[in-house]
Amino acid sequence: MTRLVLASASPARLSVLRAAGVEPLVRVSGVDEDAIVASLGPDTAPEIVVTELARAKAADVLPRLRDEGVHDAVVVGCDSMLHIDGKLQGKPGTVEVARARWQSMAGRSADLLTGHSLLRVRDGEVVAQASAHSGTTVHFGTPTDAELEAYLASGEPLQVAGAFTLDSLGGWFVDRLEGDPSSVIGIGLPLVRRLLGEVGVSVADLWSAPPPG
Amino acid sequence: MTRLVLASASPARLSVLRAAGVEPLVRVSGVDEDAIVASLGPDTAPEIVVTELARAKAADVLPRLRDEGVHDAVVVGCDSMLHIDGKLQGKPGTVEVARARWQSMAGRSADLLTGHSLLRVRDGEVVAQASAHSGTTVHFGTPTDAELEAYLASGEPLQVAGAFTLDSLGGWFVDRLEGDPSSVIGIGLPLVRRLLGEVGVSVADLWSAPPPG
Repeated sequence: MTRLVLASASPARLSVLRAAGVEPLVRVSGVDEDAIVASLGPDTAPEIVVTELARAKAADVLPRLRDEGVHDAVVVGCDSMLHIDGKLQGKPGTVEVARARWQSMAGRSADLLTGHSLLRVRDGEVVAQASAHSGTTVHFGTPTDAELEAYLASGEPLQVAGAFTLDSLGGWFVDRLEGDPSSVIGIGLPLVRRLLGEVGVSVADLWSAPPPG
Repeated sequence: MTRLVLASASPARLSVLRAAGVEPLVRVSGVDEDAIVASLGPDTAPEIVVTELARAKAADVLPRLRDEGVHDAVVVGCDSMLHIDGKLQGKPGTVEVARARWQSMAGRSADLLTGHSLLRVRDGEVVAQASAHSGTTVHFGTPTDAELEAYLASGEPLQVAGAFTLDSLGGWFVDRLEGDPSSVIGIGLPLVRRLLGEVGVSVADLWSAPPPG
């Protein structure tokens, strides 16, 4: 049967898929994201950046699937960034950067962009592919100083794109959004469903997948 | 310390709170929802209906907290319904009703309303209260016939308000929304944060709550 392969180390993406009935194989890509972004050039549209990163991640795990003898699969790569003030923001990395970002974005809105790339693999060959991005407008709340410090102390915002989550502590500080919430968490279910259709797979056929091998 | 008490049997609400760092006491209310709706009368605005149901659920667990000696708590009650075609829809209950609802709502949009009521309890007395509702517009996708039958066969849509979930299999069939996704799952985090503030509690003070007693 067809297996979904998630080319991502993100526990949030894995949780979204599991909650939605799909147990993917997880194969983490090792691409140099900074090098890919640099190769695209500074004037590349942000939605192209995230989609190209997603494509690179999906392609990167293909040789391993061949080596493992996974012959019937759909590989999905994703990349998420926050587009605000004309810039794409990934993970802040430090408390100081995360604090500065929140002080800037509290009470404002920004676009969370997630690129998706699917590769349909049969008998070790890519027989179809489909890519697209989701864009969701996120309206941030305004944490009090005490709330922001508690949030920073949790460590959560440091390691996530845009310095916030929707599905964990950060959910208290997202007032509303326009778009697909699963794409904000990191993998857009309705978009993946559409792309699966484009490569000839029904999502319902992935629901009863066996546990990861 | 102050404990959050969730007056709901909904596993989805409990999951939202846990993921957001709060381990509530769960005390399920035993109110007769149909009787409350009937007492409100047929012309009551839908946002009033869900908020009054939330209020009744929260109030219903108060005597038990007193009996248990829980003296410092915030009780939260919630009620969710889908407002479509001028009607409030709760749980479909059967495959036939769920199928008919999906055949009607596929490709369309509707409003998911969630009423919230908070009671601040100190020394066994209600010292403050706050209530409000969230309204989120949900744009449904169009499952194929095979996808809809697989979804119905999963049993999931039968026991949830509006015959869909956002955080489980139904997530594949929600194309986008405008509003707060946590309120669609059943408890709106940013609204609860605001209501907590109205009763004098910071959400960050609830984050390190001990496991349920």
